[in-house]
Amino acid sequence: MIEPDQLNYRDGELALTGHLLRPVAQARAAIAVFPTIANVTPAVMAKARLLAESGYLVLVADFYGRMPDGPVAFEWADALRADTGKWRGRLRAALGALRAEAPGLPMAVIGFCLGGQAVLELARDGADLVLAASFHGLLETDAPARPGAIKARILVCHGDADSLVPRAHVRAFWEEMDRAGANWHFHSYAGVSHGFTNPDPPPGNPVVAYDASADRQSWAALKSLLDEVLE
Amino acid sequence: MIEPDQLNYRDGELALTGHLLRPVAQARAAIAVFPTIANVTPAVMAKARLLAESGYLVLVADFYGRMPDGPVAFEWADALRADTGKWRGRLRAALGALRAEAPGLPMAVIGFCLGGQAVLELARDGADLVLAASFHGLLETDAPARPGAIKARILVCHGDADSLVPRAHVRAFWEEMDRAGANWHFHSYAGVSHGFTNPDPPPGNPVVAYDASADRQSWAALKSLLDEVLE
Repeated sequence: MIEPDQLNYRDGELALTGHLLRPVAQARAAIAVFPTIANVTPAVMAKARLLAESGYLVLVADFYGRMPDGPVAFEWADALRADTGKWRGRLRAALGALRAEAPGLPMAVIGFCLGGQAVLELARDGADLVLAASFHGLLETDAPARPGAIKARILVCHGDADSLVPRAHVRAFWEEMDRAGANWHFHSYAGVSHGFTNPDPPPGNPVVAYDASADRQSWAALKSLLDEVLE
Repeated sequence: MIEPDQLNYRDGELALTGHLLRPVAQARAAIAVFPTIANVTPAVMAKARLLAESGYLVLVADFYGRMPDGPVAFEWADALRADTGKWRGRLRAALGALRAEAPGLPMAVIGFCLGGQAVLELARDGADLVLAASFHGLLETDAPARPGAIKARILVCHGDADSLVPRAHVRAFWEEMDRAGANWHFHSYAGVSHGFTNPDPPPGNPVVAYDASADRQSWAALKSLLDEVLE
């Protein structure tokens, strides 16, 4: 089993702790994995390990420099996103740390929940990525993409019953992406809730629920699109 | 290369000509393939062959009992769909012919354009299918699914720029499927037109356009979901 190494990096004054997973053979590409609002959880680490086992060099990014204890995560996430420049800078810091480990490799980003919103934010910001893939990610932004800004292919895997991401957000996202001229694929799964990739969701949170089929099919979609964009 | 055998079947008085493709080994499942409004074309036969090569027993269905010469296909298709009972009967005849070749095997259906509409119609009609997958299919129906009627998992792979299937149809379809309690996955591909799976579209038809990425990713989605439902 591939074990992560701690990778320290900084966003200005803030010390951040990434987790780097190296594939056994030559890496096909570098992938930054952005976690949920709860920061680096076992569920996210398990996904990162699957990617490393598939031949990718993987960095699991750190949102806050520390682990939240329960609902305080929402405050931290709101504070981080309140300033688009700060938010994008925090995400760019992870890309920079991964780039230093992987000079010359194509780079992709994936993310879950807040991390899904993060990868879309990087795409809007024009990051040089082959793919940005969001799993039950939030779709809203304070800084919609400008025409021509998005270089990354976009994959959004979305639970249609996600109470945090209603259909109005979906329509607004499509319209934003079309105005920007982005190349997006959007997968909607009926009756599927927020957090569908996490088989061990936090107890007592009615918003999230695991869905084995959506988890499996969204992961297959990611791998298939990665194969295409890396050919 | 797997070559098709002609399989004659009937819908009442009408003689129909299916094409049966047998896998080399024991079939994993039986799949009826419903063609486009132009009936059985090389593009559809190529998809059927891919499925047979992947281990499925495949019947390519016949809509009209003869091949249309150009735009008359639209008249034939309209005439066929004008009566829901007749329309569903024509589709059920193909299922029956395939069932006779594959007693006991799980059965799935896929279709393209009119064929995509056909597989959704079979699902609405409560056909005993593990999966109904539509590629750039029409989503409208004269007989919306009743609650609990749909047994099949549903996969719709849709070009978001399909001028025959605007977003209003997509929303109406989601709402219909939700009222019916169907388990659906819906994939939208930005900027992709009707007929995106056909690398050799009919000349002079501005409505259709091939899209290599949507073709590849939708096919991968089909294979991945087939693997899941047949486990």
